[in-house]
Order: sequence, then structure tokens, then C-alpha cells
Amino acid sequence: MFEHDTICAVATASGGAIGIVRVSGPSAISIADVVFKGRNPLASAKSHTLHFGHILKDDGSILDEVLVSVFRSPKSYTGEDSVEFSCHASGYILQELCTMLISQGCRAAKPGEFTQRAFLNHRFDLAQAEAVADVIAADNAASHRLAMQQMRGTYSSELKKLRDRLIKLASLLELELDFSDHEDLEFVNREELMKQCNCLRQEITRLANSFSLGNAIKKGISVAIIGAPNVGKSTLLNALVHENRAIVSDIQGTTRDTIDASVNIDSHTFRFIDTAGIRHTNDVIEQMGIERSIMAANQAQIILLLSDGNMDFPVYNAVEGQNVLKIFTKSDITTSFNTKHLRPSEQEDCRCLFVSALKGTGMNALERTLVEIADSFFASTSSDIIVTNLRHYQALVHANESLHRVFQGLHQGVPNEFVAQDLRECLSFVSDIIGGSILPDDILGSIFSTFCIGK
Amino acid sequence: MFEHDTICAVATASGGAIGIVRVSGPSAISIADVVFKGRNPLASAKSHTLHFGHILKDDGSILDEVLVSVFRSPKSYTGEDSVEFSCHASGYILQELCTMLISQGCRAAKPGEFTQRAFLNHRFDLAQAEAVADVIAADNAASHRLAMQQMRGTYSSELKKLRDRLIKLASLLELELDFSDHEDLEFVNREELMKQCNCLRQEITRLANSFSLGNAIKKGISVAIIGAPNVGKSTLLNALVHENRAIVSDIQGTTRDTIDASVNIDSHTFRFIDTAGIRHTNDVIEQMGIERSIMAANQAQIILLLSDGNMDFPVYNAVEGQNVLKIFTKSDITTSFNTKHLRPSEQEDCRCLFVSALKGTGMNALERTLVEIADSFFASTSSDIIVTNLRHYQALVHANESLHRVFQGLHQGVPNEFVAQDLRECLSFVSDIIGGSILPDDILGSIFSTFCIGK
Repeated sequence: MFEHDTICAVATASGGAIGIVRVSGPSAISIADVVFKGRNPLASAKSHTLHFGHILKDDGSILDEVLVSVFRSPKSYTGEDSVEFSCHASGYILQELCTMLISQGCRAAKPGEFTQRAFLNHRFDLAQAEAVADVIAADNAASHRLAMQQMRGTYSSELKKLRDRLIKLASLLELELDFSDHEDLEFVNREELMKQCNCLRQEITRLANSFSLGNAIKKGISVAIIGAPNVGKSTLLNALVHENRAIVSDIQGTTRDTIDASVNIDSHTFRFIDTAGIRHTNDVIEQMGIERSIMAANQAQIILLLSDGNMDFPVYNAVEGQNVLKIFTKSDITTSFNTKHLRPSEQEDCRCLFVSALKGTGMNALERTLVEIADSFFASTSSDIIVTNLRHYQALVHANESLHRVFQGLHQGVPNEFVAQDLRECLSFVSDIIGGSILPDDILGSIFSTFCIGK
Repeated sequence: MFEHDTICAVATASGGAIGIVRVSGPSAISIADVVFKGRNPLASAKSHTLHFGHILKDDGSILDEVLVSVFRSPKSYTGEDSVEFSCHASGYILQELCTMLISQGCRAAKPGEFTQRAFLNHRFDLAQAEAVADVIAADNAASHRLAMQQMRGTYSSELKKLRDRLIKLASLLELELDFSDHEDLEFVNREELMKQCNCLRQEITRLANSFSLGNAIKKGISVAIIGAPNVGKSTLLNALVHENRAIVSDIQGTTRDTIDASVNIDSHTFRFIDTAGIRHTNDVIEQMGIERSIMAANQAQIILLLSDGNMDFPVYNAVEGQNVLKIFTKSDITTSFNTKHLRPSEQEDCRCLFVSALKGTGMNALERTLVEIADSFFASTSSDIIVTNLRHYQALVHANESLHRVFQGLHQGVPNEFVAQDLRECLSFVSDIIGGSILPDDILGSIFSTFCIGK
């Protein structure tokens, strides 16, 4: 699947002052020399040097004054000979330059193809390659730290340790398999194998479970805003995200679709989900909205239950691990809140806040409480290694299932060759995360297709 | 006004794969060395070299893996020591890096400040500096060529020739002034001075007049679409720009504001202006719209007069230099067009086209005609030097006025010292274009404020 042609792409977003065109492949430098005229040809340039000169069009006119960076294999991002043109950030210039490079034999790069080549040239493993996109997308300190950790290989080295332990377990089992006709030979105690198997399952489960946290860090902690109609859910959302994201009106049932809006508070990203007011209704669209509200609530990590003092808090059975905050809204106009609805147990479990989103009172306390929950949420993780990637999570879930079958097999005295088969399957799921084994083209393609062009 | 501090800015647009942070000033390299950890300190790096390494945060964690470009004074864009960090294009990383650089003594750069420093360090003159922004903004071949020409100094060298001729004229006049008490001395013939003065006026007028062309190249050739209500003006606009830019309905008076939309046809940019249908109306808003239509038409370079065969073409008196095209619309449903309204003279002056914007028939012919007009428009210019900058145009207009007073003064025998004063004024207007004399801070500030940050 490794194509040895030379690829090019614009690597910067449209706009700004500087635009970069990136070229990588065996002919990168010779193709660049055709379009570029500097003091000396790039062919004689050393790696990691910069050269001022011009891009000359076919008619001899100057397309741009540029700086060219030269990187020689293997000391480049992709591991191949590479050239970067630093141009004026004009869409016209960048497009023309790419057209010229393509007419000289380059191919337009696919999304993530530079990083894919770096992976195929063993510059880094697959989990590290995937983290490159996460580093670019990271928009807060926590998600940046996780992505950087993964890109730098800390994450991969933990997975390699896990893989090595699985390999050791497999070799013990295979060893037993090879000598299974010598009935008097039992190299390892079957109990010991089961113990090791269980230990590995715990480790994999812990990793898989960290995904909910990893996802919260990457995409924001989800906070569902739930309550009867007209208690001020949309007003609260707008106040939390500091913009008029949701339409606010006195008419019951104004919000139908669930509305998402993200905002950073301290170093955490929160994703607030405004929902339809929960009530009995004959309006079909509104009813669908209410069903979505309940679904959104069940998936959220924090629930804000709203009441304006006149209406009861909606009945909501929190899912495991959810934090529920009860909020009395419209504290500016409501003077007496009917706290009798709070059962004593609730008063213990839930924190209760008084807020006027309109006047801004109580908003600081609410934000502080959210940050506290987020802090405790992140503090609860026992390890630095947190799974943020859906593909890795799914691989770990599958690995766990295979390992569960291994354990059962050992327990039930299933012939070793079947047990070994399940263990090899488990091992391949774990290896696939870091791309240790050879992955099919379509899987690699789908991994890198989520990247931006030019990376 | 020249500040000798060190400035930094993100030089790429938000998004993409690569993000650049640019640093320039006497401490650029030493400040970069505080945040950057590579194999060797940048202090020992040669100019035009690239260095791989890490940006380390205060807590020792890695903000990013980066490539750093080092440029040493005077061999840099600004002429100062400069450093460019090529980072992963994450808004979080770029912002953090700038914050770190600022905490180490950098100042956030103002828009265009890198180019302003290049100008102040005599890397290029003011007209060249202004062209940098035009190069970045150029979105078609013609505007790119003009901007590149201006950036490369061809434009400036023509203006310098003009300035030198003015200086020569001034010196002849001043020489006469110095020896004016020697009544028998007349170094140059007054007639000869007037002749030279006139010759220079012609040159300046030609340059000033090129601005209308330059502006058309830079911003697109303006094409006003004029006609009675419901003849299909908005439908034609939408068909020309290949999108639903204007709202189309059967209701007369649908379009009230003039609507602009630009599109490239061949290598020309056309700016189409849809206008309110011209008719008698009591609707105040519509009446305002109609007034705007007439204003837009008067300023446009090409007029498309529309009729659907039922209504007459609106009476429109073309302004000098305007091209008028008469277009019969809805050719798919109208079988007989009332061409009797075309006076014989009109039939000669104007081209007449039959178009169905809905079916697309006649659209190619219309586009070809527009391109022909644009071609002839651009071919009519006698010189390569075309003014595209409003500031330059205004300076030339002022210079022309001063030179007109010089001519009158010479003609009317006004004392030489007054004539010389006007000539010096003319000279200073021309010099200001290339920034030959020292310009006040506020003028320089306003010139560079239109740049983007990081350039």
C-alpha cells in the first residue's frame, strides 16, 4: 500500500500572513528545483537549511518570493526527502504553486498522508500518529496534555507493556500446547495462568473505562440542563456560554432540538446541552424533543435539574457516575423557593444552588461547582494513561471479550489450542492500537482520513 | 517612531496543519532560546538554518514539538534577527507559545508590523511594503501580477523616474530663484519650463487615470444590472455567480438593497451589482433602493440593461467610459421581443443579447461578451504601471493639482518663489507614495493597520 510517489499540499489554513506548501517523496527536491530559482539549486542544499528565492511561472514571471526549507531523508517529518515553501498567504499563489508542482509530477496529498507516511516509515507508531490530529484539535490544557503524551509515546509504551504481558501469557500457553502430549509436563500452573489472565483483564478494563474520562477531556464534560417548560433552561445555557445560543421565549416548548454549546471554564471544557422542557404534550415534535432530552441526560456526566420554585424538580434517576446539581432559577423574581420537594436524602446527595441567569447572580457559584466536579472527576483517575480515541476504546473492549473467553476456557478446561486462539485474538486487538501488526489498507485509510490535508 | 523591542505574532490563519509564530527584534534569538530546547542553543545557530526541538512550559512539560527557523540580521524579512516557530496548528499551542514569548519580553505585534519594520529598515520602499498586503489579497492572475510588480519595485522605479524629473524641474526653477536678482540671467526658457511641466502633468494624469483600471483589477470590474421590476435581474445575478445570492420572487420590489456578488470568469473578476427594479413607487424603502440602483449604475464600468420584451428598457444615460449591454431576458418563455424600442444609434452602440437565466441559454454568450469588454478594457492601458492603491491615487490627484498651479504660475508670471513652493508640494506628494520623505507616525500607522497580524 506504500506509494513511493511525491505528494504536495497546502498545509496552512486559508488566510493569515504566511502560507506553507509541503512536498514529500523521493522527487521532492528535484521537483522543487524546477519551480524554484534561488542563488543555488536545492539539489546541493544541506538538510535543515532555508533558501530565499522565487517561484517562476512557465512564462518567466514571478509567482512569489518564497523561503524554501529543505529536509533530507531520513531526517524529516515523513522520513522522506521533503521541501516546504513558505509563501505569501494568498489563495491564488498557493493554488498556482500546487498546480505547478503537480504538473511537474507531484500528486495532491490525501488528508493525513504526510503523517501516514511518517507512520509507514516507522517515525512513530499508529497511536502516536493518531495523536498528531488530537494535538492539532486540542483546545484546552487537559486535552492538549493527553494528546501530547500520546504523540510523545508514553501512551504507546504502556500499551507495549500490556502487549508484552499478553505475549508472555501466550507463550506459556503455547509452550504447554507444544508439549501437551507429554502428560506429565505442566510448565505453569493453570491457576497461575488464570490469575495472570484476570490481572490483565483488570488492566484492560481500567484502560477501557478511562475512555469516558478521555472523551470528556477531548470533547468537553457533558452537562445536561433538564427541567419543566419555562423554568429558564435556555436562559441558563445562554448565560453559561456567554452568547445567545438558544432561542428564549415565554412560550412553553420553545426549545425542541437539543442544543449543544461548549465553553471553557478554568482549564476545563464543558459541553452544555439545552433540552426540551419535560411535560406531557400532544405535540409530536415536542414529544420527540422530550425523548431526546431524556436520552441526552442519560449520556451526560453532569445533570443540572432546574426548578423556578413554582414547579417541582423533574423526577430524574441519575445513572451511575453522574453528578446531579439542583438549581432554583429566576432567583431575582422568586422570593420563596419550595424546598419541601427536596427529600432529605437528596439534600445530602445533591448540591443545591440559587441562580438568576438574567441578573447573573449565583452564576459564579455555579461555575465554581462545575469546576470542582470536573476537578474531582479528573483526580479520580489512578493512571496517567487515558484512552481518548474511539478506535482504541473499541479495540480494548474487544480485547477484553477475548480475554474473558480465555479465562473461561482455562476455567472450564477447554483444550489449550482454543484458548490460545482467543488469546492471540486479544493480542492482535491490543497490537492494532499501536499498529504493531500490519493493518489492512482500508483501516489505515479510515484512520488518516479524519486528518486535515497537509498533515 | 522606530521601536527597537522584539515583537511576536501568529502568522498563519486559524486551522490547517501547520501554525507559524513569528518573532523579530534584537532579542528574538535569545528569547526563543528560553522557551526552545533543541540539540544546541539557537544562539550558536547560523542564519537560514532549521532546528528540531521542543517548546518547554514552565512546569517542564512539553507544549509542542517544533521546527525553528533562524534568520540573522540583516538577512531576514524585517532586517532584524528573526525566529519562526513551525508548530502543530492548534490554537491552544500557538496562543500558549505567544504568551510564553510575551512573558519573556516580547511584545504582541500590531497588524503589518513585521512589514513596517522591513520598510523602516530599508528592505523596501513604502509602495513595495503596501504591495505585500495586495499580494496576499490578490485572488486572480491580473491583480496578482500588478501586486507582484509593485512589490518587486517596478512600480516604484517608475515613480522614482517621475520624481527625478520633478526634482530636475524644481532645481531649474530654484536655480533661477537664487539668481533672480541678476535680471539678465535666465537659465532656462520659461516656455521650456511650461512645456516640461505640461509633459509631467500628462504623465501624472495618466497614472491617476489608471486607478480606475487598477481598482477594477483589484476589486473586480463592476457590472450593474438595471431594469424594470420583475424582468429577472436577481435571477440573472444568481445565474452569473452560480449561487442563490439574491432572493427571487414574483413580487415586484423584492430586491431593495443593492446586492454585490463577485465571480471569476476566465482570468477576470467581475463584481455584479443587483439593483432594485426602477419604477414609480410610493414605498419609501423601495424608492431609496431605486435611488441606490441609479447611483450604483453611475459608478459601474459595465451596465446590463434588462428587458423581458414586455417592458421597455429603462432610459439610462451612460456615463463616459461605460459599456452598456442590452439584454432580453426570459428568452425561454418570450417568443417575440419588441426590438422597436431600440433606436438605430443604440443598435450600433450597444450589444444586444437574448438570455434565459433559468434555462441557461445565452449565458455563455453573455459571459464571453463580458470577458471581451474586460479584455479591451485592460488592453486600452498604454503602460504596465497601474495604480491600484487609493492612497497613491489621492497623492497623484493632489500632485496634479499642485502642478497645475505651477503651470498657471509660470504662465501668469507669478514670482518664482511661489511657483517653487507649489512644485515642492507636488514633489512631496509623489515622494510620499514611495515613502521617500519621512512620513508622520499616524500616516504610517494607518497604512499598516490594514495588514493582517503576523505580516
